[in-house]
Amino acid sequence: MSEQQLPDGEYTLNVVDIGIDTHQEPVAFLREDSHVCSAEGFSANTRIELTAGSHRILATLNIVDRSLLPQGHVGLSKIAMAQLDAEPGEVVTIGHAPVLESLAALRKKIYGGVLSDNELNAIIGDISSHQYRDIEIASFLSVCAGNRLNTAEIVSLTNAMVHSGKRLNWPGHDKVFDKHCIGGVPGYRTTPLVVSIVSAAGHLMPKTSSRAITSPAGTADTMDTLTQVNLHLEEIRQVVNTTGACLVWGGAVNLSPADDLMIRIEHALDIDGEGQLVASVLSKKIAAGSTHVLIDIPVGETVKVRSQAAGRRLAALFVKVGQACGITVRCVLTDGSRPVGHGIGPVEEARDLLAVLQCQPGAPRDLRERSLALAAQLLDFAEGGGLTAAREKAVAILESGDAWQQFQRIIQAQGGLKPLPEAGFQYQQPAGVCGRIAAIDNRRLARLAKLAGAPFSPSAGLRLNVNVGDRVEPDTVLFSLFSETRGEQHYALEYYAGNRDMFRLQAAQEGESP
Amino acid sequence: MSEQQLPDGEYTLNVVDIGIDTHQEPVAFLREDSHVCSAEGFSANTRIELTAGSHRILATLNIVDRSLLPQGHVGLSKIAMAQLDAEPGEVVTIGHAPVLESLAALRKKIYGGVLSDNELNAIIGDISSHQYRDIEIASFLSVCAGNRLNTAEIVSLTNAMVHSGKRLNWPGHDKVFDKHCIGGVPGYRTTPLVVSIVSAAGHLMPKTSSRAITSPAGTADTMDTLTQVNLHLEEIRQVVNTTGACLVWGGAVNLSPADDLMIRIEHALDIDGEGQLVASVLSKKIAAGSTHVLIDIPVGETVKVRSQAAGRRLAALFVKVGQACGITVRCVLTDGSRPVGHGIGPVEEARDLLAVLQCQPGAPRDLRERSLALAAQLLDFAEGGGLTAAREKAVAILESGDAWQQFQRIIQAQGGLKPLPEAGFQYQQPAGVCGRIAAIDNRRLARLAKLAGAPFSPSAGLRLNVNVGDRVEPDTVLFSLFSETRGEQHYALEYYAGNRDMFRLQAAQEGESP
Repeated sequence: MSEQQLPDGEYTLNVVDIGIDTHQEPVAFLREDSHVCSAEGFSANTRIELTAGSHRILATLNIVDRSLLPQGHVGLSKIAMAQLDAEPGEVVTIGHAPVLESLAALRKKIYGGVLSDNELNAIIGDISSHQYRDIEIASFLSVCAGNRLNTAEIVSLTNAMVHSGKRLNWPGHDKVFDKHCIGGVPGYRTTPLVVSIVSAAGHLMPKTSSRAITSPAGTADTMDTLTQVNLHLEEIRQVVNTTGACLVWGGAVNLSPADDLMIRIEHALDIDGEGQLVASVLSKKIAAGSTHVLIDIPVGETVKVRSQAAGRRLAALFVKVGQACGITVRCVLTDGSRPVGHGIGPVEEARDLLAVLQCQPGAPRDLRERSLALAAQLLDFAEGGGLTAAREKAVAILESGDAWQQFQRIIQAQGGLKPLPEAGFQYQQPAGVCGRIAAIDNRRLARLAKLAGAPFSPSAGLRLNVNVGDRVEPDTVLFSLFSETRGEQHYALEYYAGNRDMFRLQAAQEGESP
Repeated sequence: MSEQQLPDGEYTLNVVDIGIDTHQEPVAFLREDSHVCSAEGFSANTRIELTAGSHRILATLNIVDRSLLPQGHVGLSKIAMAQLDAEPGEVVTIGHAPVLESLAALRKKIYGGVLSDNELNAIIGDISSHQYRDIEIASFLSVCAGNRLNTAEIVSLTNAMVHSGKRLNWPGHDKVFDKHCIGGVPGYRTTPLVVSIVSAAGHLMPKTSSRAITSPAGTADTMDTLTQVNLHLEEIRQVVNTTGACLVWGGAVNLSPADDLMIRIEHALDIDGEGQLVASVLSKKIAAGSTHVLIDIPVGETVKVRSQAAGRRLAALFVKVGQACGITVRCVLTDGSRPVGHGIGPVEEARDLLAVLQCQPGAPRDLRERSLALAAQLLDFAEGGGLTAAREKAVAILESGDAWQQFQRIIQAQGGLKPLPEAGFQYQQPAGVCGRIAAIDNRRLARLAKLAGAPFSPSAGLRLNVNVGDRVEPDTVLFSLFSETRGEQHYALEYYAGNRDMFRLQAAQEGESP
């Protein structure tokens, strides 16, 4: 079948899977001599609309040489094939993309305007239906970062993100608990521990987590190395009904899908704006049916939140937006001055989790203590009675093995425990000098783990052998570096060579005892 | 030759021109089973560095099926081929893209920070050497829009943009004149008229113009329909030495190349921020060697500058930044409340220009009057003596035919007059009702001309048969619409059907005389 013009200025062509993975932005490919190009004035980068059956997408046009496509055909990138739900050879209709009305609202925000509920709904609706180009999403995120959203806008954004996707609800439960950590502290993987303890105490905790945005691992990345996390809605319901909890990836169940599309660009730009952060976190919680949410805000010089004052401001914002959206939020400010645990990266963090749950002697004590403190906050939130009693209860649940039993039940319900892979390339970094570790730069340590391949390569990352306060000799190993490819190992070590001061060492004082 | 790993973690592959036009963002294509992909951890959207001889580029990776590329080869998009200056079959080296230090400065600006001279230099340097992705340029432009650059930043940005490209100088001339209009008024194409008059009076006016950013035509688009505008530096020098002026496109001579790369994204996002605007305009003028610049700022409800106060603020900014950059700037606020001239779009505006220069009886009077007023400003700027005398001189130069002679000399020196093309599709829009035209929405009128295909299709656009204040009958033609394709005509008329109130009509009052 060949290219045909329809009466109303649209054209039909046959689909070819052109075999190109353009990541999330749908791209359509037309021949330079295609009739539709000259008739419609299409050129490279034109936005076009494609319709196949009941599916309709917008795509960016690339123009290709004659050798790449037969006449009368349009090539689609992999994401465009998937979104249009098209089969090779299927007939699609092509026309100019309509003017997206919500782009006027985006421009209003670019120029410093305040957006209404309707305007934010329109933007988020268009993003979640894949109508925005990457440059438009980048523009939106950039002008919303840096405290440029007021509280009403953040509330609107949160609600719009909730409405953009599916919602879970938990009939028969009037309190549904959740926790979230703002992140920025490498290795601080408490969620699976807290969920195990709190749900072992009988409280509902259906936990959906995100993957890393700018860090070497998110809880979903870590859990992915231990079990199945891409569960459907029905499967999640079943896991939660069986065990009282789950530890799954939120993206697979289409909760707040706009958020996932935005996170991809936040990741590429390495930004994480405050309003966007609050809306992203709370929209996932609300969509997951939570009623009571604990937010953990680490504060430190080299994490996202750098001062107690900034932490309190963010905490107040979380509580206020939560209230406006109908949920109860409690925030705790925690120590973000140093890494927590030994492992950094999905698999290495999973090893730490298992060690704490199994009460192994070598388990990282800081990770254990801080998970207990957070679990105590949630138990107090759920039961009242004060933090001291709640902490005692948390310790008892962990030490009795109940938490480990409960973790295994959850893993079992999600599909069973996977063996943890070993990284193909390992390297031990000696200190090279004598001294005491005065500080560790969380940000650069995280970057080192990312350059080693985390989180995309699950076994990539670091294992810290030292932490702040430790004395080192020249041959003391600072960390082991794990990579799945030689290129990444090379790249990470090159970065470390230029950033050795991420471990700040104080020279050993004369006469100081070792 | 096949894929080879070099000792330092880089790989060599042979180049294939994959025949895909991805517009300005360089894209590289690797097979999914390519050794370099698995060894280096490359996936779709990874940023990679390619080196061929002395050329080095960054590109975004797309992963392709085996059928599209032979083993050991890397496909390059057209812009990547051009930037790398690579021949098919040539050997290129591939590795991870280095961390771009200037992205830290971009993030600082995203979070509301103030950028230093060095930081803006680094950003503009990386943009002009094609190291930024489109999403990064979009982010930078978005967070600089809406008065988010202070004066010092705009000065730094202007200087950085000047330094990013070539510079012209005019030995033997201590005053070099230029003019620029902020735009937003459809049909307001005074530059070629002003340049002809002022240079006929003996003042040096080497005019480099831009193409349209968000309007249906820029001066370069209009001049392109009349003569050659893509001149090399040496050719421009020759035209100016021969005639005392030129009317060329600035982009072809690599003046402020970063600006051209940013304008492409501004165009796609349909934004035009104030600081960016001042830096863009002044950097082109400074790079072109101008010493005295007249800035025309139209003010009206439906143009870029909406109030006298905003106009004065922008004027003050232009003067201040100009001064800091070492040039003299004069600004005039003009009437932006209604379209000027009859034609909108490159060719239709060219017809108006010729009519005014040739003193034809049907020439648009408003275009003539306003060009004379601007020419008078420049003559006064150059010679002193007051605006009244200057205007008389401008009128004399136009009416004597000297301006038309001078225009022809310039055109001749640039390569001769081209015949103006006729649009293939024409449509006359009747008013449909009785009344008086109370207002015309410049913004929507411009969009109508753009939907008809302007400026990419030069003969596309509008010819207005009426303007504000005119009385119309149902069969009075409001405008003729010109398109080069049926699709664009259809698309534009569909937009007009939904936006008839871009012509605001007052019903004829009973007893009112016609």
